[in-house]
Amino acid sequence: MTFDVRQDQASSRRDFLRKGTAAAIALPAALSVIGACGESKAAPPEASTTPAAPAAPAPTARQRADTMDAMHEKGVKAFPAKTEGKGNQPFEPRIEKGVKVYDLTAEEIQWEVEPGRKAKAWAYNQQVPGPQIRVREGDRVRVNLTNKLPESTVIHFHGLELPNNQDGVPFITQPPVKPGESYTYEFTVPNAGSHMYHSHHNAAFQVGMGLLGAFIVEPRQRRASQRADVDYVMVLNDGSHGYTLNGKSFPATEPVVCKQGQTVRLRFMNEGMMIHPMHLHGMHMTVIAKDGWDQPAPWKCDTLNIAPGERWDVLVKATNPGTWAFHCHILPHAESEHGMFGMVTALVVQPAVV
Amino acid sequence: MTFDVRQDQASSRRDFLRKGTAAAIALPAALSVIGACGESKAAPPEASTTPAAPAAPAPTARQRADTMDAMHEKGVKAFPAKTEGKGNQPFEPRIEKGVKVYDLTAEEIQWEVEPGRKAKAWAYNQQVPGPQIRVREGDRVRVNLTNKLPESTVIHFHGLELPNNQDGVPFITQPPVKPGESYTYEFTVPNAGSHMYHSHHNAAFQVGMGLLGAFIVEPRQRRASQRADVDYVMVLNDGSHGYTLNGKSFPATEPVVCKQGQTVRLRFMNEGMMIHPMHLHGMHMTVIAKDGWDQPAPWKCDTLNIAPGERWDVLVKATNPGTWAFHCHILPHAESEHGMFGMVTALVVQPAVV
Amino acid sequence: MTFDVRQDQASSRRDFLRKGTAAAIALPAALSVIGACGESKAAPPEASTTPAAPAAPAPTARQRADTMDAMHEKGVKAFPAKTEGKGNQPFEPRIEKGVKVYDLTAEEIQWEVEPGRKAKAWAYNQQVPGPQIRVREGDRVRVNLTNKLPESTVIHFHGLELPNNQDGVPFITQPPVKPGESYTYEFTVPNAGSHMYHSHHNAAFQVGMGLLGAFIVEPRQRRASQRADVDYVMVLNDGSHGYTLNGKSFPATEPVVCKQGQTVRLRFMNEGMMIHPMHLHGMHMTVIAKDGWDQPAPWKCDTLNIAPGERWDVLVKATNPGTWAFHCHILPHAESEHGMFGMVTALVVQPAVV
Repeated sequence: MTFDVRQDQASSRRDFLRKGTAAAIALPAALSVIGACGESKAAPPEASTTPAAPAAPAPTARQRADTMDAMHEKGVKAFPAKTEGKGNQPFEPRIEKGVKVYDLTAEEIQWEVEPGRKAKAWAYNQQVPGPQIRVREGDRVRVNLTNKLPESTVIHFHGLELPNNQDGVPFITQPPVKPGESYTYEFTVPNAGSHMYHSHHNAAFQVGMGLLGAFIVEPRQRRASQRADVDYVMVLNDGSHGYTLNGKSFPATEPVVCKQGQTVRLRFMNEGMMIHPMHLHGMHMTVIAKDGWDQPAPWKCDTLNIAPGERWDVLVKATNPGTWAFHCHILPHAESEHGMFGMVTALVVQPAVV
Repeated sequence: MTFDVRQDQASSRRDFLRKGTAAAIALPAALSVIGACGESKAAPPEASTTPAAPAAPAPTARQRADTMDAMHEKGVKAFPAKTEGKGNQPFEPRIEKGVKVYDLTAEEIQWEVEPGRKAKAWAYNQQVPGPQIRVREGDRVRVNLTNKLPESTVIHFHGLELPNNQDGVPFITQPPVKPGESYTYEFTVPNAGSHMYHSHHNAAFQVGMGLLGAFIVEPRQRRASQRADVDYVMVLNDGSHGYTLNGKSFPATEPVVCKQGQTVRLRFMNEGMMIHPMHLHGMHMTVIAKDGWDQPAPWKCDTLNIAPGERWDVLVKATNPGTWAFHCHILPHAESEHGMFGMVTALVVQPAVV
Repeated sequence: MTFDVRQDQASSRRDFLRKGTAAAIALPAALSVIGACGESKAAPPEASTTPAAPAAPAPTARQRADTMDAMHEKGVKAFPAKTEGKGNQPFEPRIEKGVKVYDLTAEEIQWEVEPGRKAKAWAYNQQVPGPQIRVREGDRVRVNLTNKLPESTVIHFHGLELPNNQDGVPFITQPPVKPGESYTYEFTVPNAGSHMYHSHHNAAFQVGMGLLGAFIVEPRQRRASQRADVDYVMVLNDGSHGYTLNGKSFPATEPVVCKQGQTVRLRFMNEGMMIHPMHLHGMHMTVIAKDGWDQPAPWKCDTLNIAPGERWDVLVKATNPGTWAFHCHILPHAESEHGMFGMVTALVVQPAVV
């Protein structure tokens, strides 16, 4: 029932700018990228009495604009840029006597946040965000945590109403899991919704470094009003790796791709330290749930303010074909004079008839 | 049907402190403004062996308080202070064959943010915010942008669900508009509500510099429940010009003026980088719309948190006569030891019978 | 009808970790706290030709983890730590001819924010937050303010829809109250809800220093749907005293204590300059009011974003026994590598049958 975004993106990576209406615009075949430094030709030294080389002519406003615009264009053209590593991938459990078993190893890795920028990360199973756990209300779940980090850690299942001894808070509900040790959580999944798992030990640092993931709980009974063709989890973060969506910065972020007429469910999760009001161009979002709990009456917006620790579920009816900018509207989180970066992606609505 | 705030304010500028109940308070006729520096009388030099002049007596707590209070009073008494330039003015379109045509020129100007403080601004038609566009659902609109800035720009119509090629995102939906060039947007207005227009190129800088304005779309059918006597747009910003309401800092901000018993509709829009929880004294606000979309059930508050990119529409039933402080409740955005500044204005409810 | 948290806490201070299910976890009897510095044994100087003492062996990851974990444990074990002074205490009025009279003295004190950390505070009646005023809709109230501070001040009753001349804004509704002077406010309480009183003069400084308190107005008629066994006010602040809940930083914060099956009403109030998304572990919160006004339809969450000036009322049905972490989810407001601090407390749900 769920449209598989990931399969589609293999092709969309190459084609979406063509398929989207964005492809219709004609851009200058060759932008004249003329920079003040790049173009200045130092005059040859002639005599010691003229030590200062004559200055190159100052670039015109148009030349400076072209230089800036070329940087902006380069980012857009690179999107979605390939990088090593992909987070938030579906996590298939082992089944042991009816229990869904997830093995999570926390360890230090190198993580490519955007092309050419690698950063130290602390990751679950070498993914940032960690692999996406998706279960059903009432499932029995076991999570085996192995700590290969240089400090202790734990897992807190943020949003799940678990028995106290499964809550993952050091010295309150369990001892910390030391370097080299393992720890097992096991519980029956109590409440549906878009939840998270993350470190709750030295967490301002550990979560900022990448120890986080989505924990989605499907309800026993799905409501027809919440049916969606695409179900997409978007984890926001602003820690050690800068401003990221699912662990990557634009242009390495992943577009959300759907076909005209489809319904997209977005599950926003903020694992950072700042608010991020996410703005979708071209279509509105209908807010259906907060922290996994249905809103009593869905409401509409195009800019949704998401605070740290919050999860918001929205539906988008993809009526408007094209490639739509989709970004945090705290503009310094999304654009600089060098072009768009950070918390920027696109919703690509492929026309029903091409 | 709409109460014209601007005409009323010409007189209210002189009279509103008198007309409001605020005039009832009796303030000291002459505040003794005694500052440590102003009052210290340096002792005359007597001998080289006593190089240090005896210190003037330290001001008493009362004297220091009087000095501080005088600064606070000065700001309040100056309100609403005259400055050069006024943004957010109603923008009358030319009509060409049934199309409402708006010519917008983006250029660099000097903008007086508060009395005596001029700052470089990038403005549409020399206004910050740009002129207020107010149309009706279904109208045909043409916007001619002329770029007199030293860098490229574009216009994004934030909140309007336009065809993709009118969305104003460089290299995704159009090429950037170079310095000296023009570009035309044309569309049928699709959805009602309180929207915005602003730059979407190098936007963290350009919007902070002033390239923004309100784009209000009246619905085809107005609901009786949303009828208002005063309809006021309040654009919040925190960029290059500091903390501003409609481009001005207190005491140069504009009071919202109404008569007792009237209903005021406020349309908050955040074009800044920070949240601004706006707090109204004396009366509550009933929240009726988010980003131009009706809330399913209106709800009440006195402090409304407005995040970057968001628009919130509220109704205030002006039952309580007087001059009411109205400000961002992040207090450092509104007050210092020198008095109120920045994101402060007043709601003036003129008594029904004077 | 209201469960008295304070009486209960005298015993809970000693016992709650035992009573809570948290007591079930077994912690290492003696943590080996081995620090790099503490353990290094400087080699004796042998000869001038070997000036550099051989380095002590670098601590292993396990040793470093143990050192960090011991700091984390120390904080948790100290909770709830005793400090001098307690804010937000119930304020019993004098009754004068049917008027509830509250005498508030603003003065400078030393305030112990956490064990051993004292800071200069400006306080009402030597409490931070000031004493909790709790009245009923329609009550006649008189507040006598005596200013023993070194600068002028006033009181604004944030959220109460008072006559303009009782609104407490200097030079708009009253003159400032000078050092050594007094001022009297008197009014009939107009609207129910969770409100606040605080300085509105040089307020970015004065409120940050502690001049604030809760002003709770019980409705004339209580709704059965809002009945609660425990009614707890939680004032958030981030001014001069750091990140605090009711004037204290973890581990000196106060746990909220209830019995399994009870309903807890939490009244969040933000007197700071930053948002604080409060996250409750183990159970969800049902949001019933905003700024004292009922929400049209209650809604559920586990993380509630509270902006400066806002008040949010929630109900928690205490179904899940145990000691539950309860903290701001901007993690740097709640935890460092030295352990939890700042905006952290616990909801302690005592099992129905021990």
